[in-house]
Amino acid sequence: MKHFVSMKDKSETEIIQLVKRANGISQRGVEPLNGQFFAANLFFEPSTRTKMSFVVAERRLGMEVLDFMTDQSSVTKGESIYDTAKTYESIGANLIVLRHHQENIAKQLAESLSIPVINAGDGTGEHPTQCLLDLVTIYQDFQHFHGLKVVIAGDIKHSRVARSNAIALSTLGCDVYLTGMKEWQDDRLPFPYIAMDDAVEIADVFMLLRIQHERHLDQFSLTECNYLDNYGLTLEREARMQKHAIILHPAPVNRGVEIDSRLVECQRSRIFKQMKNGVAARIAIITSLLNQGGNYNDENFNQCQAIIG
Amino acid sequence: MKHFVSMKDKSETEIIQLVKRANGISQRGVEPLNGQFFAANLFFEPSTRTKMSFVVAERRLGMEVLDFMTDQSSVTKGESIYDTAKTYESIGANLIVLRHHQENIAKQLAESLSIPVINAGDGTGEHPTQCLLDLVTIYQDFQHFHGLKVVIAGDIKHSRVARSNAIALSTLGCDVYLTGMKEWQDDRLPFPYIAMDDAVEIADVFMLLRIQHERHLDQFSLTECNYLDNYGLTLEREARMQKHAIILHPAPVNRGVEIDSRLVECQRSRIFKQMKNGVAARIAIITSLLNQGGNYNDENFNQCQAIIG
Amino acid sequence: MKHFVSMKDKSETEIIQLVKRANGISQRGVEPLNGQFFAANLFFEPSTRTKMSFVVAERRLGMEVLDFMTDQSSVTKGESIYDTAKTYESIGANLIVLRHHQENIAKQLAESLSIPVINAGDGTGEHPTQCLLDLVTIYQDFQHFHGLKVVIAGDIKHSRVARSNAIALSTLGCDVYLTGMKEWQDDRLPFPYIAMDDAVEIADVFMLLRIQHERHLDQFSLTECNYLDNYGLTLEREARMQKHAIILHPAPVNRGVEIDSRLVECQRSRIFKQMKNGVAARIAIITSLLNQGGNYNDENFNQCQAIIG
Repeated sequence: MKHFVSMKDKSETEIIQLVKRANGISQRGVEPLNGQFFAANLFFEPSTRTKMSFVVAERRLGMEVLDFMTDQSSVTKGESIYDTAKTYESIGANLIVLRHHQENIAKQLAESLSIPVINAGDGTGEHPTQCLLDLVTIYQDFQHFHGLKVVIAGDIKHSRVARSNAIALSTLGCDVYLTGMKEWQDDRLPFPYIAMDDAVEIADVFMLLRIQHERHLDQFSLTECNYLDNYGLTLEREARMQKHAIILHPAPVNRGVEIDSRLVECQRSRIFKQMKNGVAARIAIITSLLNQGGNYNDENFNQCQAIIG
Repeated sequence: MKHFVSMKDKSETEIIQLVKRANGISQRGVEPLNGQFFAANLFFEPSTRTKMSFVVAERRLGMEVLDFMTDQSSVTKGESIYDTAKTYESIGANLIVLRHHQENIAKQLAESLSIPVINAGDGTGEHPTQCLLDLVTIYQDFQHFHGLKVVIAGDIKHSRVARSNAIALSTLGCDVYLTGMKEWQDDRLPFPYIAMDDAVEIADVFMLLRIQHERHLDQFSLTECNYLDNYGLTLEREARMQKHAIILHPAPVNRGVEIDSRLVECQRSRIFKQMKNGVAARIAIITSLLNQGGNYNDENFNQCQAIIG
Repeated sequence: MKHFVSMKDKSETEIIQLVKRANGISQRGVEPLNGQFFAANLFFEPSTRTKMSFVVAERRLGMEVLDFMTDQSSVTKGESIYDTAKTYESIGANLIVLRHHQENIAKQLAESLSIPVINAGDGTGEHPTQCLLDLVTIYQDFQHFHGLKVVIAGDIKHSRVARSNAIALSTLGCDVYLTGMKEWQDDRLPFPYIAMDDAVEIADVFMLLRIQHERHLDQFSLTECNYLDNYGLTLEREARMQKHAIILHPAPVNRGVEIDSRLVECQRSRIFKQMKNGVAARIAIITSLLNQGGNYNDENFNQCQAIIG
């Protein structure tokens, strides 16, 4: 693959190979790349987890990291994102990681640059690297995807995480269900909506989304609508989940809103494990992109071999 | 030691060993650590000196540095400091360096994380790494602590530097004196207050504090109260100091407020030497923390041996 | 040379040697320095290109990069630039790179520090590293400077790029012409002003400047005065340029203001090549400064030899 901007264009085989590569890296580590490579991390929106996860992935590969601060950059002088990215390419970047509020921007950029572009979240579009780390986490529990019942719960409409996951999980043969407030349903995703109280009982994987206060704080009061009790994962609902079922959440968690604070680190929660897997997932993506002939074939993949230890 | 959050819990022996280790590093340098270690520098308050000093210390040890910008991070989305720190731990941080406006927060965090936490300043609580570099600087001049008369001058009440130093200097057998405006005296510290004009004459070490404009600019006007003449270190007062006495200041200095600008780089000033020692002090702390079995015993300390040169 | 703060104090020989060194580095690469060196990049004004270009240059030399954020630093506590720079020197910086809005500040700082200072733009003063990369770009097309007709077009009065280039190009024997709105002419530069429509026809090198919206947005409306048609590089004007003539622009480009957007990546544009050369130019400067005995003599320059590849 030349870029990593969407889960829409990925086949089942491609996704599985990336999942297995990431899982292997999470277990056996990775060796630094040969030679000096520069990654430009262009984050136009706030991020701790995703940005730092990329930095750790890049540094574990021995890559140089070119950071970017919106308010310290020429973007304050009105420079377009294309010119900014092209600048990084000109000064030697080998890879662009892009987070931006504009949907589809990573794809557009990918078409006009000669270096790989990774979509680290584009508006309400997609968040494919978050999707991959979610898939790796599911794989570590179940070792397969076919027939798994996965519920995605929350603000589906505004969630790029929901979109990437629904697409990829469906490609992998999972049964995808959605649940959440009517106002947040998304007609573009062809998956059934079910009630929260049914959802907790059928799910093998219960994937919570983050309420994005910063996107629609004014629309309604979470306290007034009693969000946790009506739509969130309470202790009572968790008790009704299947024994083997797991909980995912992309974080940052709004403790006491979409999930009871006491469940964040409960036994079936994979929330912090997801973060750990995020580094391996990004290493898998970066190494695939920088080794374009590698074609996901780990046997032939010699630039960045996983090592014991 | 597992964390470095306070001088209160340190014995004389522990402090002396850290001082000697830091002094050795300042003179003979240090070798990089074996293997890849990540430091997460979580600074929730502005800092040049302390933050950059940690970065230099970490890079001289070959550590990877994970930076953190409050306004670029998920803290803007309401994430708690515990969740932020736990995130860094999950993605691979081996060490947390924390500066935060909330007193005691480093200690609380230390209790809930499995990686070492260094307190780089917690509100008006403590600033133990600044304390260690002050001690190293004193040690380089006097080679001992017992019986030294150390005056701490300025806004004692709001100073975490004052608190950490008063505690540690007392543990080391120094005679600690305090001086400053009545409004800024701190009843919690059991040391005598003396007049500024007496203080300059008896001090072996004259330790000035910074007037923290940003904390109480509105309370009174420094010009109106003629701060330098009444409470600061003027040329006239400096002339009355003992021949061997030295001046310390944690910086940034308010030139012309707590000290006459012409004294900042005078012969008895150790202000820029303190900064230099700050790097060695932080290297000493980090290497002690990452080598938990080392127990400050430099003979057995082989992961990070000081080298000639 | 001990510092790199101005093109005024450089002889023709000195400039040519730097140009040749930078050109060599751009073609053959560079080896990392021996040992650990710290660069402090003190940018008090927004910058993508210059700042990132320095970071890439420094990392290609294996240098450690100490970053600086105005709003995260002690400058918010009122610290002077001298004290800030002196702090970086004290904690181990081997080099200061300074961008600041105050004219002449780099020169002043250079006089009071014992480590090299590089001027990365001082107000409306100079921007000598941008100048060097422009010179390298011209050299790659023409292999000489004597007798070249170079037009500098735009807001001459407020442009540090114009000032550094006019001085250096004149030292190198070029014929320098200026063109632009009357309001933006600068009487301090002793070069003739000519009409834009004549300028495009005589130029070997057409050097556009950036309209600095952020410096004088309120003075007049660029739309009202129809800037592109009256003073900018339109398609029509470009068509009248000499066949071999090239276009330079320091970027970020205001597309459709000083230049038609379709010309930014046209065949005679060197805009993105300039950025590429910027890295080599900065490597050439840094290696010259850190090897003070090297005296620009590449034969004797063994610390940082250019290598094949």
